[in-house]
Amino acid sequence: MTSLDSRAPSVVRLAVDCMGGDHGPSTTLPACQAFLEKHPEAELLLVGLPDALAPAAAWPRCRLVPASEVVSMDDPVEVALRRKKDSSMRVAINQLKPDANGHAAAQACVSAGNTGALMAVARYVLKTLEGIDRPAIASVMPNESGGFTTVLDLGANVDCSAEHLLQFAVMGSALVAAVEGKASPTVGLLNIGEEVIKGSETIKRAGELLRAAAAAGQINFHGNVEGNDIFKGTTDLVVCDGFVGNVALKTAEGLASMISTIIRQEFSRNPLTKLAALLALPVLKRFKGRVDHRRLNGAALLGLRGLVFKSHGSADAFAFEQALNRAYDAARNRLLDRVHDQIIATLQSMPASADAADGGDAGDTAAIAAHAA
Amino acid sequence: MTSLDSRAPSVVRLAVDCMGGDHGPSTTLPACQAFLEKHPEAELLLVGLPDALAPAAAWPRCRLVPASEVVSMDDPVEVALRRKKDSSMRVAINQLKPDANGHAAAQACVSAGNTGALMAVARYVLKTLEGIDRPAIASVMPNESGGFTTVLDLGANVDCSAEHLLQFAVMGSALVAAVEGKASPTVGLLNIGEEVIKGSETIKRAGELLRAAAAAGQINFHGNVEGNDIFKGTTDLVVCDGFVGNVALKTAEGLASMISTIIRQEFSRNPLTKLAALLALPVLKRFKGRVDHRRLNGAALLGLRGLVFKSHGSADAFAFEQALNRAYDAARNRLLDRVHDQIIATLQSMPASADAADGGDAGDTAAIAAHAA
Repeated sequence: MTSLDSRAPSVVRLAVDCMGGDHGPSTTLPACQAFLEKHPEAELLLVGLPDALAPAAAWPRCRLVPASEVVSMDDPVEVALRRKKDSSMRVAINQLKPDANGHAAAQACVSAGNTGALMAVARYVLKTLEGIDRPAIASVMPNESGGFTTVLDLGANVDCSAEHLLQFAVMGSALVAAVEGKASPTVGLLNIGEEVIKGSETIKRAGELLRAAAAAGQINFHGNVEGNDIFKGTTDLVVCDGFVGNVALKTAEGLASMISTIIRQEFSRNPLTKLAALLALPVLKRFKGRVDHRRLNGAALLGLRGLVFKSHGSADAFAFEQALNRAYDAARNRLLDRVHDQIIATLQSMPASADAADGGDAGDTAAIAAHAA
Repeated sequence: MTSLDSRAPSVVRLAVDCMGGDHGPSTTLPACQAFLEKHPEAELLLVGLPDALAPAAAWPRCRLVPASEVVSMDDPVEVALRRKKDSSMRVAINQLKPDANGHAAAQACVSAGNTGALMAVARYVLKTLEGIDRPAIASVMPNESGGFTTVLDLGANVDCSAEHLLQFAVMGSALVAAVEGKASPTVGLLNIGEEVIKGSETIKRAGELLRAAAAAGQINFHGNVEGNDIFKGTTDLVVCDGFVGNVALKTAEGLASMISTIIRQEFSRNPLTKLAALLALPVLKRFKGRVDHRRLNGAALLGLRGLVFKSHGSADAFAFEQALNRAYDAARNRLLDRVHDQIIATLQSMPASADAADGGDAGDTAAIAAHAA
């Protein structure tokens, strides 16, 4: 296999942590096989314990990359980071590091391993991009208009400054542009009902920064949005801190699970309702298809010097394949360059006044802008 | 009508802001009528513009209380508070203020008016209870076990200290005990996936305070919960700051709305699916009944020296009647006394070490405990 120019990949090569997730190779390998069949121009680096990868030894457009350890789903971050230096997760991420000539073995990496470990190892191995303080986790949720809403951060950062939220908006915009092909995605700042309170000081200042970035032509800022706007599809992108984003995501998962349980219970109540279920089956199947979260599997870890995608730990082969698809689309559409270019352009374009505001966080942007200039 | 002993009401009297909400008297009056029919021992003070209340002039167990102004759904808090001093909202809340003998005209108040105005006016008129820094908004969500999960705060407080979260836990426990008759409701602290990060410093310290309160026998603390636990029904009560709670609530509303739209769309796709809908109608009705948020209408404003319940602004007569029911149950079960007694007992029982922790918030509890002692 030849090295690839990371700027315009004619062949896209993904590094896959085949050991991660609840099911490991029994799920990841079939997903890889299905993915390869559908993407004749893609190549995979399959990373894992050699024995576990043996079934894939003869697959075309694949190379097996051995690792001697596995990060388990409940390994603390410290264990993943300091003790398991030859884990399949870490070796997969290593494939994204450019060599002396600036060429990396793979353009993106996919793992279903535990989120905390993946973020920590990726951050340690790859470092953050110029102009980014903190990487964020972005994922998509379905919306009423039939499209998707991208939300970040979903849990990487508990406390975020206004500057972090601006960085999330820029990175998220680059993601939506790259993966969904929208030239100028709309950005919403997650806030709460205006009639109650207009948000914290951080949120208000984030609004100012986002308006300034929009005025400079860097992002397409819609304004504040509320939790329900995620599913309405009011904006392409919703930006929030990781605590709020994680609660919103988990709350939605909980409600979806409850509703599907209730539908099942009600349709299996008695012979008559079971008959109704039989007759309604095509409709229920279509409904299920439209709200199937497996289709949307694959969260992006944004802000790193490499494209890392996180699959849900419980993903089945179909879901894991979707995560591979998302990583593939991101790599093919040069997401890494887009994020890099857009964050630098945004910071350079921001008026000095945006940095001159009072408050402890204000220095961050100034420092980054100075660094970027 | 005779004055009532607020400690053991034999007759429960509610003050109703009949002008509030999107629909005003056309909704609130039929709801009041239905409520009165079902509660022969209840009395209502109907507050509003005299003309609007005319249809209720001859109703039994009712008294009309005139007000000359109405707080509109988009009136800023300042307008409601300073300019409309004879609004139906304010006059209704006034009914909760005890006279020189300690007797109030009503034991609870219900309004569908705008949340920010209602909270501000209620706080101004009634003041907060001893030991409470900030009132909170509590409401219930359905859960998978067929019961309800009470969540607070849902938007009254953007930034909360650990001490505030403790107060929410105590007030919420009193609410669940009073309204649902659970002697020792379980309390969960809303947090995010442990594998990512274990929450902010505030959340960690709140966990310590909640454990201390549990050790002192004041609350039944389960531990951290995540967003999905709200709908799983892992705990009776979920405590969080108002920003997070509001986002969780609105996110759930948005998802529920999207799912019902999709179900409708899929069942009305063609003649065959419409037939399936007809056959599945009893099942769909039961499903709708189980997830019908109107049943759960009526949020409690907790921590005030009076029981104020907030109906959803868009509530129909059925939903508004549920808010009346919740207020009635709370008054009948002496929620105000319960909150008062439990917060004082908790603060007095907390070990001094809980107050001695570092950090700016720690002084709060010490001051309150000193005040309460």
